[in-house]
Amino acid sequence: MAVRVNGRAADTIAVADRGLAYGDGIFRTVELLDGVPRLWRWHWQRFAADCAQLALPLPDEGLMLAELAHAAEGLPRAVAKLTLTRGVGARGYAMALDVTPTLVVTASPWAGYPAELAADGVRARWCALRLARQPRLAGAKHLNRLENVFARSEWSDPDIREGLLLDSEGWVVEGTMMNLVLVSGGRVLTPVLDACGVSGALRAWLADWLPTQGLVLEEVRLSPDDVLAADEVWLVNSLAGVWPVVRLDERCWQAFPLARRAQAALASA
Amino acid sequence: MAVRVNGRAADTIAVADRGLAYGDGIFRTVELLDGVPRLWRWHWQRFAADCAQLALPLPDEGLMLAELAHAAEGLPRAVAKLTLTRGVGARGYAMALDVTPTLVVTASPWAGYPAELAADGVRARWCALRLARQPRLAGAKHLNRLENVFARSEWSDPDIREGLLLDSEGWVVEGTMMNLVLVSGGRVLTPVLDACGVSGALRAWLADWLPTQGLVLEEVRLSPDDVLAADEVWLVNSLAGVWPVVRLDERCWQAFPLARRAQAALASA
Repeated sequence: MAVRVNGRAADTIAVADRGLAYGDGIFRTVELLDGVPRLWRWHWQRFAADCAQLALPLPDEGLMLAELAHAAEGLPRAVAKLTLTRGVGARGYAMALDVTPTLVVTASPWAGYPAELAADGVRARWCALRLARQPRLAGAKHLNRLENVFARSEWSDPDIREGLLLDSEGWVVEGTMMNLVLVSGGRVLTPVLDACGVSGALRAWLADWLPTQGLVLEEVRLSPDDVLAADEVWLVNSLAGVWPVVRLDERCWQAFPLARRAQAALASA
Repeated sequence: MAVRVNGRAADTIAVADRGLAYGDGIFRTVELLDGVPRLWRWHWQRFAADCAQLALPLPDEGLMLAELAHAAEGLPRAVAKLTLTRGVGARGYAMALDVTPTLVVTASPWAGYPAELAADGVRARWCALRLARQPRLAGAKHLNRLENVFARSEWSDPDIREGLLLDSEGWVVEGTMMNLVLVSGGRVLTPVLDACGVSGALRAWLADWLPTQGLVLEEVRLSPDDVLAADEVWLVNSLAGVWPVVRLDERCWQAFPLARRAQAALASA
């Protein structure tokens, strides 16, 4: 694994970094082909939004792309992770006015998901953990991810690929690592992420692609019953693509006409 | 600052550590006199409880004490920070079954709070940020602390020493870095921390000390009006001790008979 920290080869960060101390930072995971990130426009859009939400200085986009290319050198297909923290700070929670952020870029040879998962579909489950509602942090892919850790640790059956999460009020939010999309009566629905959840790059791509099909991605409140009543259920993220859900507990789905169109469009995106 | 990572002098951790990736770990801050931690019994009680709550393997207590003494060597009075993470993991949220945790111990010369703050009392404010309610994480001093970062960044007036936090339902929980205690009609009250908040070592000490005074620390739901109606309001943590609150917005307090007894007892604890 190639690791670069603030533009130099290094695989450690300071113990005093606020990323470790408080989870004070953000991250994104990106697929690279010959050093060029796929779906960059949407990754960058989300990354910039997260920087604004967390009051982190936005790095230069060209620098980020150069760092990604550098880290992935020699790898025809790679998965990269970008982490940006509020850097080394004095003791105490308050943000300093003069922040020198820490940018960590790692790249590894692609070890993504088998293509069959998108082709054949996946099984999912409901998680017992309920996401807390925190509007101040909702949508951002920040480094406070203990809820995801506990939710993902609820099951070990490798045939179950994802767990769906409700918030403390019982609304459906997302999977532990993927956004959720429903096709229901001709509409395309995804949970509104104003109280919790991560607004992913592929969700952003879908919001841009659907209008080319005469559709829109509607952000709405969804109950578990809405999920069970849907015509198609998808799990999406930028590394996995669009996974049709073929089984959720006892409910099964077989046909995914719109998911197939999205997968085809994504292949050439 | 002396820093030790897993028993060796080092001031960095691996970029792949789950403490950075997900805030997957816990921490505690401890005062050391000649290398010996003050209030250790209560720090250790809370640290062990946090390990259990986060399913982290509990380090050996003797090893922890030796690490603290080692880090504080040559410092007559020091402040130390213990951080325990779930260590370096593979990509993905799931906890591995075979965890090799990372233990980080840092020690610096004492730069704690002026003694006048405990003597003269402090001003506090209400924070606008509301804490999210997550029972799975409540009470633990884990590394997911973005809420504290944002709350503490709401004000910069150095005369205001602490901000009080409500949860999303409007219950009073704690300060950004301190627990809250009220004396009200002869009772001693502190917010129950079953939905959010950090259960601190000094709060645990108070729960043990009060019965020696014929009192008990009652964990209850408290509203902002309960705080304003209290006879004494204290902010407590192990580094600061017991701070009487002399002013909260427009409400002022002048006499703190029980706080003075607690301070005296704490001085010889």
